[in-house]
Amino acid sequence: MKRFLAALAMLTTTAAAQAEEVTTYTLENGMEVVVIEDHRAPVVVHMVWYKIGSADEPVGSSGVAHFFEHLMFKQTDILESGEFSATVAANGGSDNAFTSYDYTAYFQRIAADRLELMMQMESNRMTNLAITADNIATERNVVLEERNQRTENNPSALAREQFNAAQFQNHRYGVPVIGWKHEMEQLNLDDALAFYDLYYSPNNAVLVVAGDVEPDEVRALAETYYGVIPAEPNLPERIRPQEPPQRAERRITYTDPRVGQPYLIRSYLAPERNPGSQEEAAALVYLARLLGGSPFTSDLGVALQFDSQTALYTNASYDGSSLDTTTFSLVVAPAADVTLSAAEAAMDQVIADFMASDIDPERMNTIRTQLHAAEVYALDDTQGLAHRYGAALTQSLTVADVQAWPEVLQSVTAEDVKAVAAKVFNRDQAVTGWVVADPEDAQ
Amino acid sequence: MKRFLAALAMLTTTAAAQAEEVTTYTLENGMEVVVIEDHRAPVVVHMVWYKIGSADEPVGSSGVAHFFEHLMFKQTDILESGEFSATVAANGGSDNAFTSYDYTAYFQRIAADRLELMMQMESNRMTNLAITADNIATERNVVLEERNQRTENNPSALAREQFNAAQFQNHRYGVPVIGWKHEMEQLNLDDALAFYDLYYSPNNAVLVVAGDVEPDEVRALAETYYGVIPAEPNLPERIRPQEPPQRAERRITYTDPRVGQPYLIRSYLAPERNPGSQEEAAALVYLARLLGGSPFTSDLGVALQFDSQTALYTNASYDGSSLDTTTFSLVVAPAADVTLSAAEAAMDQVIADFMASDIDPERMNTIRTQLHAAEVYALDDTQGLAHRYGAALTQSLTVADVQAWPEVLQSVTAEDVKAVAAKVFNRDQAVTGWVVADPEDAQ
Repeated sequence: MKRFLAALAMLTTTAAAQAEEVTTYTLENGMEVVVIEDHRAPVVVHMVWYKIGSADEPVGSSGVAHFFEHLMFKQTDILESGEFSATVAANGGSDNAFTSYDYTAYFQRIAADRLELMMQMESNRMTNLAITADNIATERNVVLEERNQRTENNPSALAREQFNAAQFQNHRYGVPVIGWKHEMEQLNLDDALAFYDLYYSPNNAVLVVAGDVEPDEVRALAETYYGVIPAEPNLPERIRPQEPPQRAERRITYTDPRVGQPYLIRSYLAPERNPGSQEEAAALVYLARLLGGSPFTSDLGVALQFDSQTALYTNASYDGSSLDTTTFSLVVAPAADVTLSAAEAAMDQVIADFMASDIDPERMNTIRTQLHAAEVYALDDTQGLAHRYGAALTQSLTVADVQAWPEVLQSVTAEDVKAVAAKVFNRDQAVTGWVVADPEDAQ
Repeated sequence: MKRFLAALAMLTTTAAAQAEEVTTYTLENGMEVVVIEDHRAPVVVHMVWYKIGSADEPVGSSGVAHFFEHLMFKQTDILESGEFSATVAANGGSDNAFTSYDYTAYFQRIAADRLELMMQMESNRMTNLAITADNIATERNVVLEERNQRTENNPSALAREQFNAAQFQNHRYGVPVIGWKHEMEQLNLDDALAFYDLYYSPNNAVLVVAGDVEPDEVRALAETYYGVIPAEPNLPERIRPQEPPQRAERRITYTDPRVGQPYLIRSYLAPERNPGSQEEAAALVYLARLLGGSPFTSDLGVALQFDSQTALYTNASYDGSSLDTTTFSLVVAPAADVTLSAAEAAMDQVIADFMASDIDPERMNTIRTQLHAAEVYALDDTQGLAHRYGAALTQSLTVADVQAWPEVLQSVTAEDVKAVAAKVFNRDQAVTGWVVADPEDAQ
């Protein structure tokens, strides 16, 4: 009863700074709902996001979250194996699913008048999936083949696995989303069912409906299809192991004859967007743009590509969408006659110069304007908005955080960027990886 | 019923190659018992080993196994806090406990006629511990202070934590036994009780009694005190995450102004002793003695200390007692005018020379004789024998494996050593750590 009252109290309708109308509420069974109105076209995006990703997997069962994403397209008590997607296609829609460290999500884009059919099928497979040992054997081969294609055949992906494993000393972000091959090979029906029973539950899910719909209509349908599913009483609190203080840089040379161009990656632990506290993440968005990206305007680009021609390619990247501590990364591919150690020294000199000088206010203004434009354009992308809310709500953020983000981005100052850079550029929390075809290139 | 029959069938009495009389059986509730007779003195060692170590901890609760070792000395329904140890001491005995990656064990050494009192108290705290939130708060500070003393104040220990975390990409051997400080600080009564309820159970325990006792008498007492405790029906199978293929060496420089003498450590993944398959582990015992140890006879000692005076200290170490894949490590502390990179190159040259040449049969014979002598002496150390059996049985080995070990050690050939060296000396599975006081020493 307490939960029911709380759910009603959470019913709010908010309008973001710009166009989107967003309504959120929580069903009595704990399932969160976000409705984003966009009446420009008679289509709807229907997404169910589960607060379960690879970093929540039981130890020893890496890959089970992604594996389960595949199994969700198998038979249920009323659907044949494959019938879900076939039905979406027969109704003129498209569907897919994706798994990350923090979430697993399923979505369809379809004519707005087919929303009920989508909810009927999606709610059915939340609880009535009827997977068999045969499904397991078949689909395990499919995900193993996916790993072969994406990782085993890709030296950069294999190198990234090694660097990630060294970046995280305790957190499961060090384990690949697709899973370690030797653990994927052992995934079985029991693992899958235990995972499904616990995590595919309405109190662990977020429904996002975006498009030509009315919030009341969505609510009635959501209550009919999802509201009748009981909450999972044994759903564990989502507590993950956090990193201890990292005390020494890790250095790795990954050698693989398939590597075309030698390059180096430096990744540092970095803060992520947190509820009510997105300022550091916003400042890191600026830092990535100041250091990397354009060869003509970024610090790495100008110093290593334009001026000295030390590098063929430079980049800096950061994505604050993460439930737990994430990374800030730099990449440099040296020019033909430049060693990796010379390129790394040049990169470190760029960081040192950046820390030693003031940031040009004009550059801050340029980035601020670019980010404002990007946020305005984002509002026109209904599916992208739906993705934003789904990811945010499964990564501990709130609707208010999503709506505050553009303004937080606009408020970043040069001092904020310097402060967060001083915090992040800590070599003790870094992994430096060299990727080469031949051990002789590792110098 | 099936278990009862199995338990009776497992009752066997075996005599090792030399002196010790060992009797083993399993109680109806699944508790294994090992009795080692030694009637030379009227004393007994009473040990209870639990098949739970730090590598079995729930993720995010590192340190809980060791923390629980401390809590076991608190009050039960019949004992005051501290009364256990006080009673042992008042009866002229001594007691202690220890925690490793693979086990937690409690032992007392006392006059043989006090065995029943030991069993009475030990069986009592297996199930009737009455810890409180106050105990938690107090003892958490004790283990945090233990971490301060042993790890935070010790640069070598901090460095080793970093190297271990990089050595294991997936397995919990990468997490320190004492725990990460930030997770130790969060250990609470719920964590402790959940841990206790599940793992402190007779079907997860091994009783080892060694000394002036008769197997029948021990059995009667064990059945009276331990046999009445019900098996834990929900005890999970002991499955741990294993390492994926490691594909690239990790390199770490740990810098700490408290470091006195710079040194380097190279550690490689290495096989452990496995049930019925201890040959590779035995060969690694020889490899460690061939490469490290004596400055006058070992390969590293002769080349780096005696001949070239490149190093002040060298060592090679390996301990095959481990439930899962372990490590083989080399250490070199360079002489004052030698850089770490020169010392490392010299060390790698020793390995290369070792792999390129045959092993002198005389050296193999010398080590074989030393190991034989060590095994003979070991039989005289009853407490050491008790430890061997307890460790082995909590690390998946059997009594037969323990008894076969001396013979397996004697059977190692030079070819066996070369074969396992070729397998272990794989830089992709290695961590190389430099430990320095000043970044300038890292060259």
